[in-house]
Order: sequence, then C-alpha cells, then structure tokens
Amino acid sequence: MSDNTFGKIFQVTTFGESHGAAIGAVVDGMPAGVEIDTDFIQRELDRRRPGAGAAGSTARKESDTAEILSGVFEGKSTGTPIAMLIRNSDQHSSDYGELKDLFRPGHADWGFHAKYGFRDHRGGGRSSGRETACRVAAGALAKLFLKSISNITISAFAAEIGGVKAIDLDMDEISRNPLRTPDAGAVPAMLKRIEECRMAQESCGGIVECRISGVPAGWGEPVFDKLDALLAHAIVSLGAVKGFSVGSGFDAARTAGSVNNSDPEAAGGIRGGISDGEKIVFRAAVKPTPSISQEQLMPGTDGQLHKFAIKGRHDVCIVPRIVPVVEAMAALVLADCALRQRCARV
Amino acid sequence: MSDNTFGKIFQVTTFGESHGAAIGAVVDGMPAGVEIDTDFIQRELDRRRPGAGAAGSTARKESDTAEILSGVFEGKSTGTPIAMLIRNSDQHSSDYGELKDLFRPGHADWGFHAKYGFRDHRGGGRSSGRETACRVAAGALAKLFLKSISNITISAFAAEIGGVKAIDLDMDEISRNPLRTPDAGAVPAMLKRIEECRMAQESCGGIVECRISGVPAGWGEPVFDKLDALLAHAIVSLGAVKGFSVGSGFDAARTAGSVNNSDPEAAGGIRGGISDGEKIVFRAAVKPTPSISQEQLMPGTDGQLHKFAIKGRHDVCIVPRIVPVVEAMAALVLADCALRQRCARV
Amino acid sequence: MSDNTFGKIFQVTTFGESHGAAIGAVVDGMPAGVEIDTDFIQRELDRRRPGAGAAGSTARKESDTAEILSGVFEGKSTGTPIAMLIRNSDQHSSDYGELKDLFRPGHADWGFHAKYGFRDHRGGGRSSGRETACRVAAGALAKLFLKSISNITISAFAAEIGGVKAIDLDMDEISRNPLRTPDAGAVPAMLKRIEECRMAQESCGGIVECRISGVPAGWGEPVFDKLDALLAHAIVSLGAVKGFSVGSGFDAARTAGSVNNSDPEAAGGIRGGISDGEKIVFRAAVKPTPSISQEQLMPGTDGQLHKFAIKGRHDVCIVPRIVPVVEAMAALVLADCALRQRCARV
Amino acid sequence: MSDNTFGKIFQVTTFGESHGAAIGAVVDGMPAGVEIDTDFIQRELDRRRPGAGAAGSTARKESDTAEILSGVFEGKSTGTPIAMLIRNSDQHSSDYGELKDLFRPGHADWGFHAKYGFRDHRGGGRSSGRETACRVAAGALAKLFLKSISNITISAFAAEIGGVKAIDLDMDEISRNPLRTPDAGAVPAMLKRIEECRMAQESCGGIVECRISGVPAGWGEPVFDKLDALLAHAIVSLGAVKGFSVGSGFDAARTAGSVNNSDPEAAGGIRGGISDGEKIVFRAAVKPTPSISQEQLMPGTDGQLHKFAIKGRHDVCIVPRIVPVVEAMAALVLADCALRQRCARV
Repeated sequence: MSDNTFGKIFQVTTFGESHGAAIGAVVDGMPAGVEIDTDFIQRELDRRRPGAGAAGSTARKESDTAEILSGVFEGKSTGTPIAMLIRNSDQHSSDYGELKDLFRPGHADWGFHAKYGFRDHRGGGRSSGRETACRVAAGALAKLFLKSISNITISAFAAEIGGVKAIDLDMDEISRNPLRTPDAGAVPAMLKRIEECRMAQESCGGIVECRISGVPAGWGEPVFDKLDALLAHAIVSLGAVKGFSVGSGFDAARTAGSVNNSDPEAAGGIRGGISDGEKIVFRAAVKPTPSISQEQLMPGTDGQLHKFAIKGRHDVCIVPRIVPVVEAMAALVLADCALRQRCARV
Repeated sequence: MSDNTFGKIFQVTTFGESHGAAIGAVVDGMPAGVEIDTDFIQRELDRRRPGAGAAGSTARKESDTAEILSGVFEGKSTGTPIAMLIRNSDQHSSDYGELKDLFRPGHADWGFHAKYGFRDHRGGGRSSGRETACRVAAGALAKLFLKSISNITISAFAAEIGGVKAIDLDMDEISRNPLRTPDAGAVPAMLKRIEECRMAQESCGGIVECRISGVPAGWGEPVFDKLDALLAHAIVSLGAVKGFSVGSGFDAARTAGSVNNSDPEAAGGIRGGISDGEKIVFRAAVKPTPSISQEQLMPGTDGQLHKFAIKGRHDVCIVPRIVPVVEAMAALVLADCALRQRCARV
Repeated sequence: MSDNTFGKIFQVTTFGESHGAAIGAVVDGMPAGVEIDTDFIQRELDRRRPGAGAAGSTARKESDTAEILSGVFEGKSTGTPIAMLIRNSDQHSSDYGELKDLFRPGHADWGFHAKYGFRDHRGGGRSSGRETACRVAAGALAKLFLKSISNITISAFAAEIGGVKAIDLDMDEISRNPLRTPDAGAVPAMLKRIEECRMAQESCGGIVECRISGVPAGWGEPVFDKLDALLAHAIVSLGAVKGFSVGSGFDAARTAGSVNNSDPEAAGGIRGGISDGEKIVFRAAVKPTPSISQEQLMPGTDGQLHKFAIKGRHDVCIVPRIVPVVEAMAALVLADCALRQRCARV
Repeated sequence: MSDNTFGKIFQVTTFGESHGAAIGAVVDGMPAGVEIDTDFIQRELDRRRPGAGAAGSTARKESDTAEILSGVFEGKSTGTPIAMLIRNSDQHSSDYGELKDLFRPGHADWGFHAKYGFRDHRGGGRSSGRETACRVAAGALAKLFLKSISNITISAFAAEIGGVKAIDLDMDEISRNPLRTPDAGAVPAMLKRIEECRMAQESCGGIVECRISGVPAGWGEPVFDKLDALLAHAIVSLGAVKGFSVGSGFDAARTAGSVNNSDPEAAGGIRGGISDGEKIVFRAAVKPTPSISQEQLMPGTDGQLHKFAIKGRHDVCIVPRIVPVVEAMAALVLADCALRQRCARV
C-alpha cells in the first residue's frame, strides 16, 4: 500500500518492472504555471542511463525516452498530474530464466518471495535499479519547479569509489569525467580500481556526497518530518544505499560539544530538522553491486544451495550512475518542503 | 502539516511543548484486543526519564507519568485511538527567559524563528528532547502489539560514548550499568570521559546500535518504504542523530562485492528493503549535546552575536537516554510494517 | 487506521469514549500566528452542549470545557499541534450496564462487535455523539484560521424538524430560538412536534442546511477531492446523517439542463468540484435519534431477540444540536482547502 | 496535491486530460496473487464507453482499450502497482477552440481558471467525464480483488431518468436495456423523455441506485471514515452528482424513531458507519448534462457575457453511462475497507 508514492504535497508515484511493458511516474502536486522543459528531463534521464557514465557501467542500451502523457499544456504545467512513460525496449528476459527459482545474494529476490509468495523474477522485476529512471524523471520536474521559485542548486558527486577518495574538490570537474567525481587527480586511481574489479569478476561501492545551496532558512518540519529525516528516507530508499549522514555525520559521535557547535559545517545546513540557510551537505554509503559474474552460492525455492554464475550485464560500480538519482531524490524532498512551507504561517 | 504523525497504519501523533501544560501522544491503528500493560508503559518511560540512566543525565525531576485517556477497556485495546497524557510538572521557565531573543547553536531555535516567525522559546518548546517521551510511550504500545503477535525482541545499546567503544558485547549487561552499554569493561572509561566533559563544561556524543531478532522475512516494502528507509526516517527524526547505517553501513563502500554478498551481517537483516528473516542491525550517530554550560557566541533577533552561557540542566551525554527512544522508534516502524504486511497477499 | 484523522493539511485527530476519562482533539497544520480566542472555542462548545439548545435536548449536564494543552504561546498559534482536552465528568455508566450484551437498533453496537470482537459499551463508547464535541472544538480553530485570512461566514440552521419546514428564512433569527431555525413562525409547530414525540416516547429527525459566503473562487480540487465531495465526506461522517446534497441536490434529477444551467442557485456555489465565488449551500438529512425510551426488540450476544427499554438521557430531536457540528465540519473542510490552494500555482 | 489519488490502502491514482495523449490509472495496494482477467476489465470499460449504452449517449467513438503496463505477471497481480494506459484516439480538439476564452455554465471551466490561472480547455481537459474511464478500469481491478475474497455483488442501475421512475425492479433486466434500468415497463417512457430533450436541445438527469450484497458485518470505520462517508465522498466526486443518500436517506428526516429503527431497509446496510451484514443501498442524484446544444449565455475571460452554442458531441442523459462508474467507485471503497479490516484486530 502506498509504497510507490513519495512526498506529501509534491508527490511522485512510480510503477513498472524491469522487463515489463514500461515503467513510469505520475507527479501529482506540481503547481500550475511551471515551464516544462522536456529537453531538460531527457538530459537528466541520459545522465542515469546505462553506459552514459563510466567504465563501470552496464552495456544495456536503452534510450529511456520519457513521453509526457498529461498535465502539460502549451509548455506549462496545468496543476493536474504529469504522467511520464518510459517503454522498456531492450529486455533480454531470456538471460534471467535460470534465476527463476534462485534467490540472488544481496538482492530483494528472497524478500519478494517471502512477502508476496511469488515474483516477477525477470531482471529484478520491480526491485531493479531501472525503477530509479522514474525517480530521475520526477526529480527533473521537481528541479524545474524549484528553479521557478528559487536559486537552489543540487550537486551530487562521487566522493569515494572502491576506497579511493576524492580529495581536491572542484565542482566544475564533476561533469567532465565519467566517474562524476570532483577530483580530476583521483580519476585514474578510481578507474584502475574499477578495472581491477572487472578483471576479478568483482564489484565495488563508494560514497556519494550531495551539496545543496540556496535553500532558505525554515524548510523542513520540526518533529517527524525533519528535513534530514526526509532526506534519509529518500536516500536509503535507494537499493544500494547502506548508510546516510548529514553534516559531520558519524564523526559527530567523537567530537566535543563546543567544537561541534562552532564548526559551521557540522550541522550540514540543518538544525533541529529545519534548514538554517547554510549549504546543505549529506552523504550516502553505496554498497558494491551484488550482481557479480563469478560463481556464487545461492539458495533456491527447493531449499537447497546452488552454485551459480549470474549472467547478464551489470555495473561493476554503481556510484557514478547513482549520482543523478541522489540529486533527484533530494529535489523531490525539497520541492515537497517548499510547498509545505507555504502552509507554515497565516 | 502532518509533521506530528508517524506511520501509515499503526500511527502515532505527538503534541506538546517542553514548558507548556502537557505533552502527549495519540496512537491510532492499534488493533483491538491487545492487552495493555500500563506498568510496562511506565517502565519504558522511566528508562528515558532524566536521571534514570547515567552519570551524564540532567537533574530535572519529572515523574513523566502517562495517563491513558481512551482506547482501552477492561485492560484491552478497543481498536479506537489510545491517547496518553504526560503533564509537565517541573518547568522552571524562568531559566529560559534570557534566551527569548537568542538562537542557541546546534538547536532548532533559529529554524523555528525562520519558519514560523516566532516561537515558544521555553526549554526548546516543541523541539525539546522532552517530546521523545511521547515517542517512548507510543513505542511501548507498539512493543505490546508486537509481543502479541510475535517473538520480536528489540535491543538498543550504547556502542560508543565519547570515542570509547564497547568491544565485548554481552546483551545482558546493558540493563546493569547506567550507560546502557553491553561492555562492562568499557564502563569506567566511558564514565571517565563523561566526567571530563562535565568538568570542562563540555558534552560528548556516541553511537547507538540496535539489534532486532524475530522479524519474519517479508516485512518492509520494496520501493519508497523499504524497511531500512523507514528506520532511517524514524531514527534521523531524533534531534541528536546525524547519521544512520544498516548492516555493514559505511564500511560497505570499501568492501568487494563477493565479500559483501557472503558476509551474513552485511545486509543487516534487510535486503532490497525487505526483511530477510535474519537479525536486523542498525546504528545511529549521536552528536554531543549542543547545550553546554560554557560561554558561547550566539546570534540574536537583533542580528548581533552575543556571548552567553546557557543555564538550566542539560545532559553531558545523551546517548544512554536515547537508547530507549531508538527502540521505541524501531518498534513503531515494525508495528506499522506488520500491519502493512497483512495487506500484501490476497 | 487513520480513521480518527480528518483533513490533509489542516488536520484534526480526535480521541475518546463517551464514558472514558476524557475526549479530545489534536489539530495539526494550524498555521503559526493565528490569534487563539479561547472564549470563542468555549462558546462554540456551549452551542453543542446537551441542554444548550432545545426542548429536544438531553438533560446530561457537562460543562464540556476544553483545556488547551499545546501549540499556543502568548495567545497565538505556534505552528505546532494544538491539543485540546475535555474531561468526562458526568458519566453515569451504571445506566448502561444492562446494554452490555445487547445491540441497540440504529446504533453502531453490532458493527463494533463485528469489527473488533468486543466494545466499550458504555454510552455508545467511541460512537457516542459526544465525540462531536471534539469536532466542534477543532472546527472553532478552523473558523479562527479562516477569519484571519478571509471574510467567510458559515451559517447552518434547522431547515426542517419532524416534517415541519422553515419557510421564511431570517438568518438573524437562528440564534434567537432554541431550535436554531431561521423561521420564527415555524418554531411553535416544531416545538409541538418535538413535544408530541417526547410524550409518545418517540424521536424525530429533520434537515440541516448550511450556507457559506465569502469563499473565493478556486477552492476545492478537480478530481477526487472536489469541494462538494469533501463536504459530503465530512457531513455523512456524522452518525445521524443519512443524506447530503449540494445546490439543487435531488431536485437536479428532475430539472432540464437549460434550467439547471441558468439557475444561479443550482450549482450551490461549486462547479466541477471547485468553488465559483458564489454562496455555497448544502443540506444534510438527519435521522430520528435511534435511542428512544419505549420498549424495543434488540438482538443480543446470545443470538436472541430481547425486549428492552433504553434508559439514560437522550435527545428527542438532535437537529438543533447538530447545527454547530455541521458548521464545524464545513470549517474544517474549508480550512484544509484554503491551505491546499496555496500550493496550486507556482 | 494528492487530489488524484483515492483510497488509503487500496489506492488508485488517475491522470490525463480529455484531449491529451492519454489517460490512465495506477492502482497501488492490490494484494499479490489476484487473477487479473483483462477481458473483464475491457468489458467494464465497454459498459462506460460513449455509445455503449443508450439513446442518450454521445457519438464519440473511442475504443477505450486499457493496456496493462505493470504489476501483473503470468496472469496474476504481483503486489506492485498496476498501471493501465488508455490512449486518446478521437480527439477533435478543433471543436473546442472557440471555447478557449469562455467559461461554460455548469462546468468546471471558471473554477479551473480561478484556481490555476489557466487551463487545458480542450473538451473539459482534466474535468472531462472521460476521466471516469480510469475509475472504471481501477474499479474493475477492485472487483477482481473482491471476487477473490468474497461473494460481493455490486449492482447499480437507473432508478429514475428525466422524472420517470423505475417501479417494478427486476435486477436481471438492467443489462437488457440501453438505459440500465431494472424496470422494462419504464423504458419506453424514459426513452421518450430523452428523445424530447434531444429535440428541444435539452438534457435531463436522474437517479442512480446501487445495491451491494455480500458485504460482511464490520467493514467501514467508526469515526471519520464511516463506510457511508467514504461512499459519499466517492460518489459526490463524480462531476454530475449533486446528492447522495444511504438507506432511507432524506425520507429519514420525516420518519419517527421507532419506525426508522424497525425498518430493515432504513439503515441501508450501514449503522454507525459500519456494515451490518445486510444489503447496502445508496442513491446518487445526477444533474442534467450541462453541455446542451442550444445557445446559452456564458462569461468569458474578457469579463463579458457571450451568447454561444456548444458544439461537439454530448450525452443528452448521462445516467446510463454513470451506472458502471458508480459501481466502480463503490468497488474501490469496498476493496479499501476490506484491507483496512484486516488491521482491525490483533
């Protein structure tokens, strides 16, 4: 129930399985009068597309074209729901037939089976990373709305890949390299690490950082829907994310109160759950892709363990492709907060 | 709007300011027929009470007695909302008068002002940690419901305080020491660290870990309301929490895929957002209490910076007291997931 | 689940049973900065109070004093939830002991039993008309909010009692007579009808009409949350209401299109679910109070039919007392629509 | 915000404008394992289709084929959202160009303009009756779910058309005549009335009644989400409906308490908001179609009144076509109540 809808006023509902007819998103709550730049939506989708980013990406070739079905008239949002449809074109279901009765490690396979009694096993079905394309399309609408009312900029990037950290951060560098990292100097070591993984039939993870400027003080709610709580919900709802932190994050656990209080970056732009007008900074820990091509042991519906090598095309490192998804989720949270803030005062 | 309600089927709504007439919680969605052990609710509240735990706790003496106003008849839940009221008895508002025009560092003061235009400044008002008593009372109801349908046990503890880690974990030890840590051997060093902070008019933070056993496979939803996303939302909505991780957490960013896949603890009991039947483990990073008694610089409504020392009674280290609150939030999430799961299959 | 909360942005949650410790309401979503006139809230409660209105009213003497527990500071709403508590003082549970194992006709008794397996049978428990006191208190807050942003006036009245219709409508007359009817000339016949019912151990119903002026064009949503759909939901959620109509209502079924189009009152101020700037007019059909003092046949938990006369104090005609409740529900709907409208355009 | 979603657990979200690319529905909350009979969905859509029913219907020829995009695997629901797409094929936008700057009487045109500042004027845009095709498709899914768990039958019919009442009710007759009335004897007079309207460039309304058998006692919630309140919301959210009643409805206002209590049909199968196990009966008042072909006065964006004759194809009487829509809305309400009931007891 309602698992497929995110947000309270600016709401997105996504649907679709990896190897079904189509995936899509319905955005309800977009205010009327926002200019809908369809090229921008497509560019955002292109950033997430398999093969768009990096050495680490899958070879699946999907155009991922979003068709807008409703809610836009003469180039502007009408206030009614904006439905976007992305057809699945390159499905290769046959690659997955052998996995029908197996539960891949690190995936939702077993959980789906336990929850629903059966599942669309093709390519991960509803749990495929492909679902995030819908989030990116919806996030693009959120960005267009935010742009129409503010000067907010949302920049996510690979802060760490396979243990290699970005040290010298140059935000302009992010879009110049396929890894979406702001440290040009770290790129060779990161690429080397990814290549090593590929050769070893391995995968690796990393850390995505997101920096948001231009958010006015006062956004976010003071109790359950703290701005950082909403961001945590949004980011941890991405399948590969195992951790979330804001500002000083886990380091705060080891810092003295006076130091934490006076460090302008410790709060991460959010105090008591409400934006304070400073730059918002949060991080997400991304696990290594669980789909690796080496043989692994996996349980089956027969209750036995099976030795099996997953075929198909999989990212060695999902970090560069998750960067635009993180931005999209942040944009969805902020669009919702912006509208909720309109109701805060008489 | 709706910021004060958490959960979709098993829902809690909290209300009240630190120095108003009362705080309270309304739990809507408790199934009928659950035995309501009021002593248990009170014991849970007592665990969170100031002074109940540790050397690090405030001296504020509140009995924090929850009066049940509705929804219980002849010892059982009736299916209608259970309202619980906690009167504020020991308010000392005068301690806070001087803070009326100042925005304390690390607190929500400035955010409230920016959001609403003014605020109940007494003791943090709505943003006071006192609000968490309502969460604990509601969480106690959630635990009673879970107990009636399962053998779930939820055990949170101080995994680290002021940089001192618990190493040898003995779950039975948690309730024996005032720091709620499972490592008896770490207690002296932790207490020493807290005492050093107190002498230096400082505060310190730490890490709370929560382990949950007995959750059947299949709980949590596969997309936006992944079990770990709901837990992240719940835990980061606690004012002092700056980070959340599940299973291998941030370490996952530096682990190889095959290792992460085969490590039974890496998933933390949740794969693809759905419980897998294993023990659920998550962690929260707790920042040092921002209220410290040394002089600090703080901005005021006059736009100037003021040197000011906060009076009143404040925890040097909030970690032991946040332990039952973390459990309460986990129980609320699980109670909700348990009911949502009833609707998963025909 | 969530049955006890009404509204999407301006939300009220009510709790409490007729003969429990207390009833109450939590209003979440009240914008900050609204002046909270507690005398006004009390006056609204007094209008609904047993004995306040008419010859037809019960003799139960409750002061129905609402204590505000939170969300108000220095006379203004703070943006946090406003909890209001009404203690039950005059409970006479003993009157109801004999009904423990019987299901009264026309009441929710049997439904509660079927739904939850057991029930708090005292005075109707959660299903008592007493719950509407909470709606009135919350509606008073909604009215205060609406007053702070508009010149909306909401006037409900008895349009018909026991078959006697109000013909000459003078809005100023409504507050002058205990029946809350705008036709002074109809009062004697209405009172006579009520008295006849009382003598015959009978009850009677009637029709409440509500007129709302000052609502700007554009409120209400175009699809599922049409303004008239929200009003229908709100009004039919009152236990005694069996019908709802807006504008020409059931007469529309027998009118020609051109006549209906050109009649300024046919739309009732709402077209396509959105307010059109004209006066909003709707009606509610109120059934006769099911609690009558004559002997009736009623089924019991033993599966047998029992002849039984309900004791206790009951209204012969609920219509005058439901008038302020109808206004309250209308105010809650409008307050919610007002805030939703703030999100309609960029 | 969230105006386009209906239901709390079994939820439908609709999208699309009359003359946009497509309309559609996303059903979230369908339990896994329900057999999805796509032919049944199509038959339900066919019942609502223009021209399917009666003499009174429009000549617009749309196949209204629903393509299922997701949530179904090997013929069964998977527990994930079921998206259904209906392309708009026969759009004739040019018919509507002249209405761009006019606000048709009895329509949402002016409301949309006031609400959003501009509108997709083509064929009523989002407010077109065409949106109800999505409700019928979603309602078909709700019926399939209900069928899988119960023996519920939902039968709506034309109880009155243009003032001509159905007297002798034979439920088997409903599907035999184009007016969907259960009284074969009333058909000629009804058809004559419709033909008179057409000749006079007029339209007429009527009354739809809905009877539901097989609902177990205990469905519906006791306070705000009473079963009749949910039905009222659902039914009044249909553009043409001006009134709703359950059981004795407006007649209850003129009945004595003892009579109302002992009449088995007075309650309409719902007491205190909860189903009592008896047949559920409710009625909807349908206004005459506001689009008539005679010249009418209508205001324009220029602030002037214009004399204008609406072109295009419009139903003389919408009643027969609204019959399956009423059933669909009832099915959606009941599917939601069925799932909510699963959470009522421990």
